[in-house]
Amino acid sequence: MSLGDITFHTRKWVRPEDLNANGTLFGGSLLRWIDEEAAIYAIVQLGNGRAVTKYMSEINFVSSARQGDLVEMGLTATHFGRTSLTMRAEVRNMFTRESILTIEKIVFVNLGDDGKPAPHGYDSITYSRDRVPTQHLGHFEPED
Amino acid sequence: MSLGDITFHTRKWVRPEDLNANGTLFGGSLLRWIDEEAAIYAIVQLGNGRAVTKYMSEINFVSSARQGDLVEMGLTATHFGRTSLTMRAEVRNMFTRESILTIEKIVFVNLGDDGKPAPHGYDSITYSRDRVPTQHLGHFEPED
Amino acid sequence: MSLGDITFHTRKWVRPEDLNANGTLFGGSLLRWIDEEAAIYAIVQLGNGRAVTKYMSEINFVSSARQGDLVEMGLTATHFGRTSLTMRAEVRNMFTRESILTIEKIVFVNLGDDGKPAPHGYDSITYSRDRVPTQHLGHFEPED
Amino acid sequence: MSLGDITFHTRKWVRPEDLNANGTLFGGSLLRWIDEEAAIYAIVQLGNGRAVTKYMSEINFVSSARQGDLVEMGLTATHFGRTSLTMRAEVRNMFTRESILTIEKIVFVNLGDDGKPAPHGYDSITYSRDRVPTQHLGHFEPED
Amino acid sequence: MSLGDITFHTRKWVRPEDLNANGTLFGGSLLRWIDEEAAIYAIVQLGNGRAVTKYMSEINFVSSARQGDLVEMGLTATHFGRTSLTMRAEVRNMFTRESILTIEKIVFVNLGDDGKPAPHGYDSITYSRDRVPTQHLGHFEPED
Amino acid sequence: MSLGDITFHTRKWVRPEDLNANGTLFGGSLLRWIDEEAAIYAIVQLGNGRAVTKYMSEINFVSSARQGDLVEMGLTATHFGRTSLTMRAEVRNMFTRESILTIEKIVFVNLGDDGKPAPHGYDSITYSRDRVPTQHLGHFEPED
Repeated sequence: MSLGDITFHTRKWVRPEDLNANGTLFGGSLLRWIDEEAAIYAIVQLGNGRAVTKYMSEINFVSSARQGDLVEMGLTATHFGRTSLTMRAEVRNMFTRESILTIEKIVFVNLGDDGKPAPHGYDSITYSRDRVPTQHLGHFEPED
Repeated sequence: MSLGDITFHTRKWVRPEDLNANGTLFGGSLLRWIDEEAAIYAIVQLGNGRAVTKYMSEINFVSSARQGDLVEMGLTATHFGRTSLTMRAEVRNMFTRESILTIEKIVFVNLGDDGKPAPHGYDSITYSRDRVPTQHLGHFEPED
Repeated sequence: MSLGDITFHTRKWVRPEDLNANGTLFGGSLLRWIDEEAAIYAIVQLGNGRAVTKYMSEINFVSSARQGDLVEMGLTATHFGRTSLTMRAEVRNMFTRESILTIEKIVFVNLGDDGKPAPHGYDSITYSRDRVPTQHLGHFEPED
Repeated sequence: MSLGDITFHTRKWVRPEDLNANGTLFGGSLLRWIDEEAAIYAIVQLGNGRAVTKYMSEINFVSSARQGDLVEMGLTATHFGRTSLTMRAEVRNMFTRESILTIEKIVFVNLGDDGKPAPHGYDSITYSRDRVPTQHLGHFEPED
Repeated sequence: MSLGDITFHTRKWVRPEDLNANGTLFGGSLLRWIDEEAAIYAIVQLGNGRAVTKYMSEINFVSSARQGDLVEMGLTATHFGRTSLTMRAEVRNMFTRESILTIEKIVFVNLGDDGKPAPHGYDSITYSRDRVPTQHLGHFEPED
Repeated sequence: MSLGDITFHTRKWVRPEDLNANGTLFGGSLLRWIDEEAAIYAIVQLGNGRAVTKYMSEINFVSSARQGDLVEMGLTATHFGRTSLTMRAEVRNMFTRESILTIEKIVFVNLGDDGKPAPHGYDSITYSRDRVPTQHLGHFEPED
């Protein structure tokens, strides 16, 4: 299994709607951003648009950001299970050069067409686009 | 120190914007809701509009929700530190009667007017409104 | 028919996006919140995810709120019609301890699978979860 | 005092985020739209960016709209008080040609720099732009 | 072919979420508004809810707006192609009386039920509602 | 002057709120995303949080995206003027491997503390973080 460094992609510009009453970045916005970025990373690694958040390890909010700051988010795969993918995530403030938070483990589960965990067949990181789906997600009716 | 059961207040109606591509509740929406509810709980307990998320313990997403489901969020204080408040949180699906996630520890830090941790002076839960601030938050310029 | 006191559940934290240019809570945000809370209350009372707003009596905006204030919303059923539910609503500012607005009558209509008013079969308030649906809303194609 | 017909300006395209679980236009979106449009109308008539919603008379939701429908909103002034403006509002579905709702009275209050009701000095409708403010709203600190 | 003057309909009230860090209207909000208004205009002219943006000519941002300003958007058809509609758009600041931007050509393409360009059958502007669809958009599965 | 290839950073996951009634990516969402990404790129290149959109050249929407698709945005500087920065932008669909749109010129203007165009002092692209501001944006009152 080959594991790599965190690669930073998506960047956010902190806007008024992302602030708490203290004038710093709202934890809830931050968590929403990182979950969305993890979903994108999982789709690229597992080649499947149907992967969902299963677990996050503890989160230390070590620094924050202000309105107008730039924030970048990075992820790397740290473990490929049979039906899961474990990632490490970091969010950094580009202005202060400080880490905002690190999450050692974010686990996504790969789902089959029946909405149940399904093997994804991969055991190492891809750095190219070879697994990105080429088909749009069809209509999906979650099972009851 | 007196600690209590989780009290459920805010309820959400799961709408299209809260879904992932799998047709189930998006983890990012869920995390945003719980962080906002924790902020409200902390303001009621600490009597201070300036409290920020410092730490969350691990999160297991044990079940989910669909569009149209009702979700309720509950919190209780589990520890009053000198400048911090630790809470336990649970999110439940009112339709399926299942727990969606539990977070054993969410820590908020009480901030003073200088934006630094400040003692809050409380060591037990209030069940009344006696600590809710009666003054609006003034303009607040975070320190550099 | 048994009718009860207003029960306050959902709480909101007033954020920049909820303000009008005067720096006070935007009436439109307030009305959106109360309509959503009424929908949640109606689902709990009628056990049906398909209930829609039919009528609101006059609304006096007697006080307001500022950024950072906490607002709570409460409802109680006041009349069970054959296909409708009438509620009384109040929104309060937890900081100022003032009422923000009261709406004497919000009427929701219970809809059947054909999108037409349908009897709901209840004539009194429930304080438990006995009527909350246990089935997700299926796909629903409104009739033309 | 000269009063006129309703003039329809702003049009909305009903999108997924505006629907309730029944697949029809969410009452909360509708109320938010009409309050915002009333604020715009009041600014044009009173020449003051500081006017706030004070009262709405009863609202009948007589028809609705679906995703993709076009909706238009119209207002007219019906009474100029010393510090207030009363408007009549209608929302129509351009697809079905039906009225969605009518509100006989929406009252806005004109505020002075101290945030208190202030005379606006007008007693009739303008159909030109002669009262529209030419100065941006300065920073405004609501009084406590 | 008869072509007309720009008609101004929808008006926006600039809110905090529409500002960039410089305190002026964010270009992205402006572009989103004008694209939505163009879609509404195209539906009224082509009588078809399935028309999509195909082209925009160059855009000069000649002035801007501040929080609390009123902005109005106007369009007129300038060319009816076989499957397309070309419009000219202008956005104005009602407070400063200045033009904010002008777009000489916005082209929408009329789509058939198969999602491909389809003739719309019109060659001149309508000023009435005669072409507005009377049927809701049915479920539409884009072709692959 | 050294000019380089487009570098793709931020990625978006197309969600229900980003769709038009035709079930494809709404042009307005796309334009909002690209303007925000251009602002981020300009801040990194000019080291100034006060840069605003001045001009966009024509835009061809050559392909689109569906719900669940991944979209990536890329930019490169193509010209450093005395007070401006010109960029080329491309948006691509990672699923279909197609270009969605290309904008040959997006011009941002660098503003001084007085809100007027100000020299930025750069004439080539940086690939490191050497120009990213280290100070938060202070309060900024746009000049009248």
